[in-house]
Amino acid sequence: MYSITQLQDLINKQIVEKKYPVTPAELYDPITYIMSLGGKRMRPVMTMMACDMFGGHITAALEPALAVELFHNFTLMHDDIMDKAPLRRGKSTVHSKWNDNVAILSGDVMLVEAYKTLVNSVDGAILKDVLTVFNNTAAGVCEGQQTDMNFELMGDVSVAQYLDMIRLKTAVLLGCSLKIGALIGNADKEDADHLYNFGVNIGIAFQLQDDILDVYGDPEKFGKQVGGDILSNKKTFLLIKAIELAEDLDEEELHYWLNAKECDPASKISSVTAIYDRLGVRQLAEDEMNLYARKSLSELAKVQVNEENKQPLVDFAGQLLIRET
Amino acid sequence: MYSITQLQDLINKQIVEKKYPVTPAELYDPITYIMSLGGKRMRPVMTMMACDMFGGHITAALEPALAVELFHNFTLMHDDIMDKAPLRRGKSTVHSKWNDNVAILSGDVMLVEAYKTLVNSVDGAILKDVLTVFNNTAAGVCEGQQTDMNFELMGDVSVAQYLDMIRLKTAVLLGCSLKIGALIGNADKEDADHLYNFGVNIGIAFQLQDDILDVYGDPEKFGKQVGGDILSNKKTFLLIKAIELAEDLDEEELHYWLNAKECDPASKISSVTAIYDRLGVRQLAEDEMNLYARKSLSELAKVQVNEENKQPLVDFAGQLLIRET
Repeated sequence: MYSITQLQDLINKQIVEKKYPVTPAELYDPITYIMSLGGKRMRPVMTMMACDMFGGHITAALEPALAVELFHNFTLMHDDIMDKAPLRRGKSTVHSKWNDNVAILSGDVMLVEAYKTLVNSVDGAILKDVLTVFNNTAAGVCEGQQTDMNFELMGDVSVAQYLDMIRLKTAVLLGCSLKIGALIGNADKEDADHLYNFGVNIGIAFQLQDDILDVYGDPEKFGKQVGGDILSNKKTFLLIKAIELAEDLDEEELHYWLNAKECDPASKISSVTAIYDRLGVRQLAEDEMNLYARKSLSELAKVQVNEENKQPLVDFAGQLLIRET
Repeated sequence: MYSITQLQDLINKQIVEKKYPVTPAELYDPITYIMSLGGKRMRPVMTMMACDMFGGHITAALEPALAVELFHNFTLMHDDIMDKAPLRRGKSTVHSKWNDNVAILSGDVMLVEAYKTLVNSVDGAILKDVLTVFNNTAAGVCEGQQTDMNFELMGDVSVAQYLDMIRLKTAVLLGCSLKIGALIGNADKEDADHLYNFGVNIGIAFQLQDDILDVYGDPEKFGKQVGGDILSNKKTFLLIKAIELAEDLDEEELHYWLNAKECDPASKISSVTAIYDRLGVRQLAEDEMNLYARKSLSELAKVQVNEENKQPLVDFAGQLLIRET
């Protein structure tokens, strides 16, 4: 079995070696640029890991894994325009470095490249199944992004609505990455579906952890600004649950901070965190996260391969859920 | 053989009956909206016509034809953002009616819907071939759009560069529409490729005609503002050729109008048209158009089916090149 590091090295090599047309430069340079910004390569690693788990040749999964990473980075390129984000991994976003039009069109061709990479590399016998999960996932990710943008303008969002949004925006692509790898590794349909469900559930757990880390994470390790979600009133599990539970003075104070136009950022972060602490929403988020982590492991248990073949995926799930909170 | 009107009716019925998810409304309503704006449905008609030509069942080509129309309208939705166009077929563009973010994301999911429609409807035996021409075409159309935007900022554009741009931006999708229909109709690879070449060449001829009509068309029949290209300094075949040929006073006057910041639109149109007339660029454009029309017919001649089966396509090409100039 390949280790996570070996798989990351393989996909990074594939990304570096991938060549796109030279012209028009405005169309293809941004693809090379955003793909070079790095990251954990979580999704392509999952594709290769799933293939490896069923005894498939890792080389057969390399290009499909690249397709998944291309798709993920296409969504980042377009999301960054919509969110007007200036930075991605500490570097300029494509629409800041070039302009919005370049980011729109380069993203479009990147989505096409993802399909092209899949169609050119996947065996005809499983192509329809691979493309079906990919198509449904791609539409789901767009639905998740639109729902997330809609949440910003909505007064009340329920926990159920929130969980459905993160399922679409984040989790289904992890399920899809694994299912494609499983199909390439010649898994049967049921095993491939269990692995899909494993991925979706671990993805939801992963996003819930991210919500927790944004408030309670170690600033040294977290990578993003701790408290960023609180400052932007982002409707995370913690905030939604706090709005649901807060009464009397807590409710009043929470709404004060949510509506404060100009305020000291550090005070807002510490005050809202104190409300979260009083309401115990961190524990509720951790309980929910553990629920999804357990669901994911029960799906993995149903997969009909040796336990030792599952170990890299168990380790990987452990790495995702680092519990450094 | 089906008539053009019958095929238009079939695709329009398919478009009306197609149902998308209900939520998020911002994602799917714009798809229904832009698809309802109408048009000649040239591309899906070509897909069905090609299938019919080889004796394929028209029902097998209906959903693939819809996929081609979805793709075309996805490009319009994103192009309209990039061009900041307020109107499309006399109605608000999607980004004007909603906003840029909605048009970006709804366009993305529309591209995915095009793939989904193809994957769900095309037989596994030809799916790889169908998707290969579709992928290459989709990337080509993006390249054409970027190249066209680059032309706006370039001083000199050659006729060869211009022809290559319109080949990508407009013509390859006509070739692709026909080739997909041919493959569904069970054509052999060579016939499908001849039909592709027919489509590309007729597409170039069609765009050259559009350049001519923009200046010399009957305002009653043309649908767009006659002289629009002249007013916006659009680098059409006529302008590129005029810049190449103009000398002395004509050259001076042409540059005066190209650089005139504020001027009477009617005077600019009539003066530039007069320069075109003196240089004979209309005739050169018509010669070029006829060259591509002849090339297309010589490709059609190579296709191994009865002449009567080719007749609808010959008629359709005739309708495209209406010579109402």
